[in-house]
Amino acid sequence: MADKSRLSLNTATVNQWSLEECINGCVRHGIAAIDPWRDGLHNLGADVAREMLIDNDIKVSALCRGGMFTGNNTLECEAALDDNRRAVDEAVKINAQCLVLVVGGLPAESKDINDARQQVRDGIGKLLDYSRTCDIPLAIEPLHPMYAADRSCVNTLRQANDICDELGDGVGIAVDAYHVWWDPDLEKEIKRASGRILGFHVCDWLVSTTDLLLDRGMMGDGIIDLPSMRRMVEAAGFDGFIEVEIFSKKNWWQKPGNEVMETMINRFETYV
Amino acid sequence: MADKSRLSLNTATVNQWSLEECINGCVRHGIAAIDPWRDGLHNLGADVAREMLIDNDIKVSALCRGGMFTGNNTLECEAALDDNRRAVDEAVKINAQCLVLVVGGLPAESKDINDARQQVRDGIGKLLDYSRTCDIPLAIEPLHPMYAADRSCVNTLRQANDICDELGDGVGIAVDAYHVWWDPDLEKEIKRASGRILGFHVCDWLVSTTDLLLDRGMMGDGIIDLPSMRRMVEAAGFDGFIEVEIFSKKNWWQKPGNEVMETMINRFETYV
Repeated sequence: MADKSRLSLNTATVNQWSLEECINGCVRHGIAAIDPWRDGLHNLGADVAREMLIDNDIKVSALCRGGMFTGNNTLECEAALDDNRRAVDEAVKINAQCLVLVVGGLPAESKDINDARQQVRDGIGKLLDYSRTCDIPLAIEPLHPMYAADRSCVNTLRQANDICDELGDGVGIAVDAYHVWWDPDLEKEIKRASGRILGFHVCDWLVSTTDLLLDRGMMGDGIIDLPSMRRMVEAAGFDGFIEVEIFSKKNWWQKPGNEVMETMINRFETYV
Repeated sequence: MADKSRLSLNTATVNQWSLEECINGCVRHGIAAIDPWRDGLHNLGADVAREMLIDNDIKVSALCRGGMFTGNNTLECEAALDDNRRAVDEAVKINAQCLVLVVGGLPAESKDINDARQQVRDGIGKLLDYSRTCDIPLAIEPLHPMYAADRSCVNTLRQANDICDELGDGVGIAVDAYHVWWDPDLEKEIKRASGRILGFHVCDWLVSTTDLLLDRGMMGDGIIDLPSMRRMVEAAGFDGFIEVEIFSKKNWWQKPGNEVMETMINRFETYV
């Protein structure tokens, strides 16, 4: 099973905590790395966060998140690109190992997913011109097809690999177990992603799932074969931090943060 | 746009009605075909249903549904197979053009989706030995990946095409827009399914979707490009009935059935 030293806390897991509380929680519970969300980072201030992270020797496995490249017109797409450049700057500031991209779904009123996918390729291509100069790798995170309309039209590892093949250096993939566990091409496309896997996120798929976004399970409570997927990404050369990212409005977000942290560590050592 | 003469009512769309009410509703609203669910068929009685359908000249585009082939042991799989053979008999009884298969997800306690997929291939293979003798084509319906755990581990048209290639005559595919619209291989795999498309189901994907199972939208209320998909299945040779199948607990199931029928016909002629 996975060693605690490889665990990174994605701050969405303890949504009840501020980023400051998350960093202090990592220190208290002996967690070596963190992946903060940008809203929390803005609240604390990137300079303060940077200092806290350095002082406490907490590594930053990634920054969540850039993306949302799709729009109805050039103006919308340019605004998204500006925001993505700011996200890259923030990633630099806190020494993040990569910037996670949730690429965006269909623009409002659009039914043309092929066009959205082209916009995503173009957007990542443009962002790369900047992110490469800052040495911040971009990590495309394919999202489950149930988010294709409103969050990400990149829904499979194959699509992400295709984009990486097309765009070259500076872009890789974040493999999130929740999004890809069902994929018949899982093993093949993880293997194909060798050398470009920038992140591995874990949680669990609950049966039954009561909410499309906010009902993810703690590792061990669902049906994803996490050890098997961990071995796949490791066989593809990934040896970085493994992030725990759990959106759980009705369950884990209602509990005391310390209880969530303890359970997370225990489950990580048992089920990942 | 699609002609009303091609519309088939999947009875789940007016879940507030019994099968008898559905058949009478089809007569009243000039709907030429129906796809009944088995529970409604059992409630009315297959003999009575047969007579009503013949008397009113309502075609049966399909019977919903067989499948659920996966199990924890031989006993469970055999029980599923027995039930599927009964479903074939019922399809014969009401002159259904095919039997729709929702193939089943992970057996309880299992995390092995590859094994589940093998069980499905085996199960369909065994059912074919019977269904071929009855001249009832089996229509594999790939379900959206969000149902991979609990309803169907066949989640893409490519998987369904692979099974058809492997098993040969007597098995084809039901293309349901709700389940496959997001698929990057949509056009390619529909083309590959030429000659084996046994059904085309429509509804719409709502933004936002509030329930994984029971929040489907009426055609035109969501983001699926239905005319484009209709042209794809037609280019692949499909000229059968187009089923409207809408699970909508909070919206359409709460309205008077006749209102749903009128809206359905109007939207079919405008958005399909």
